[in-house]
Amino acid sequence: MSVLASAAQLADARRARAAIRAGHAEPTSGVAVGLTQANLIAVPADWAFETLLFAQRNPKPCPVLEVIEQGQVESRLAPGSDIRTDIGRYRVWRDGELAEEVGDARAAWAEHPDLVAFLIGCSFTFESGLVQAGIPIRHQELGRNVPMYRTDAACAPAGRLRGEMVVSMRPIPASRVADAVQISGRTPAVHGAPVHIGDPASLGIDDLAHPDFGDAPEVRDGEVPVFWACGVTPQAAIMASKPPFAITHAPGYMFITDVPDAEYLV
Amino acid sequence: MSVLASAAQLADARRARAAIRAGHAEPTSGVAVGLTQANLIAVPADWAFETLLFAQRNPKPCPVLEVIEQGQVESRLAPGSDIRTDIGRYRVWRDGELAEEVGDARAAWAEHPDLVAFLIGCSFTFESGLVQAGIPIRHQELGRNVPMYRTDAACAPAGRLRGEMVVSMRPIPASRVADAVQISGRTPAVHGAPVHIGDPASLGIDDLAHPDFGDAPEVRDGEVPVFWACGVTPQAAIMASKPPFAITHAPGYMFITDVPDAEYLV
Repeated sequence: MSVLASAAQLADARRARAAIRAGHAEPTSGVAVGLTQANLIAVPADWAFETLLFAQRNPKPCPVLEVIEQGQVESRLAPGSDIRTDIGRYRVWRDGELAEEVGDARAAWAEHPDLVAFLIGCSFTFESGLVQAGIPIRHQELGRNVPMYRTDAACAPAGRLRGEMVVSMRPIPASRVADAVQISGRTPAVHGAPVHIGDPASLGIDDLAHPDFGDAPEVRDGEVPVFWACGVTPQAAIMASKPPFAITHAPGYMFITDVPDAEYLV
Repeated sequence: MSVLASAAQLADARRARAAIRAGHAEPTSGVAVGLTQANLIAVPADWAFETLLFAQRNPKPCPVLEVIEQGQVESRLAPGSDIRTDIGRYRVWRDGELAEEVGDARAAWAEHPDLVAFLIGCSFTFESGLVQAGIPIRHQELGRNVPMYRTDAACAPAGRLRGEMVVSMRPIPASRVADAVQISGRTPAVHGAPVHIGDPASLGIDDLAHPDFGDAPEVRDGEVPVFWACGVTPQAAIMASKPPFAITHAPGYMFITDVPDAEYLV
């Protein structure tokens, strides 16, 4: 499909990217509603094939929306954008360790001019569909970042890249869980249907109250924890696989595109 | 999903692969019904990233089901298989020219031990769904190969790889075209919904009666030509982009996997 954004949506997206470029940094859940958001992982060129292969083998956590080739910094999903400045918070990784978080990645990017950048679909994209269907998104209501957890579910390895899946969690009223599955399932390019429902322990999650990334959740009576594969998974792969260098977004601080969610409906 | 094939289906697939390995070579439409079939393109390792990127950018014609890394010849989609022998007819390409067709690719494969092989979904996979819905598949009825056409629709390039899309065509009764769209649309991993319906000229196809690959079609009164993106597209990219070496299947002679079609339903 080639679904066009409305003028109002495009204005929203451009305003959000401009504010972020100017230094604004907040989690982007609920920002530029109806437009697709993306995770970032950028690696040196000699890791690019393995990264793309890792994504191909793990399409639930790593659905690739775009590959920005070395020497390029503009996303075709957002004309006029600069992938080095238009995310609110970046993480710079050295040998698998988080070296620093920065609001502008140009200096880090310049260290490795051969970086290849991968934009990976984000579950914030289908949240608007859930809200439209009357399914509340708790972290939006509370003004918090979505809670994310490392799991013990191994991804399929690709060359030197391996690691466990990361998931995001949303508490959903028990009567709406099936609806949430069906609504999110229509957009596999932004993680699609949940990977687990209702039993944190079977993902190796001991304590829902203490997520590995993002903010603590609030699960109320009658609600079930629903887990979606998360685009932070490549960061877990960086920690496990230790490439010499990488730049990612910080969890929850996404790249906002000009592409309507409807583009990714199947 | 992880959908398991029935014992009868697996026996079908293994019998078909064994016959092919022993020298049998016929188009595989209608063989091992209910199991996914795949196109092959194998390229030297230094073309692997661009091939995977070309596929990522052109998911309708090039949905990647599996990447078989260099040094390996067994598909995980078909345990016990050998990708060098289990396709009925192979094409060997040198500098973008078709050099030869062979029934056994082991000698050609040995020339380039660094070949990386890509298995790409095939539209034969959703034909069983169409037949189940009472939509006739003309080339099966006639015992012919599916007609395939080169088009003037450019694929998104990736590095050195570029080319036009190839499509397969099935004549569908006008009253069933919408059903064919919806049924095939449920399996984007095997090309999904049609890319064009009813107007060959707008794809640059001058003469339906003379396909570029496969056998001539028979379009009857009341039927509309429906075009699906085709996994022969990488062969058009080979012709246009002239990598030094490549091995592909011959159009219509597919790799039969052990994976049920239902695995790829969304």
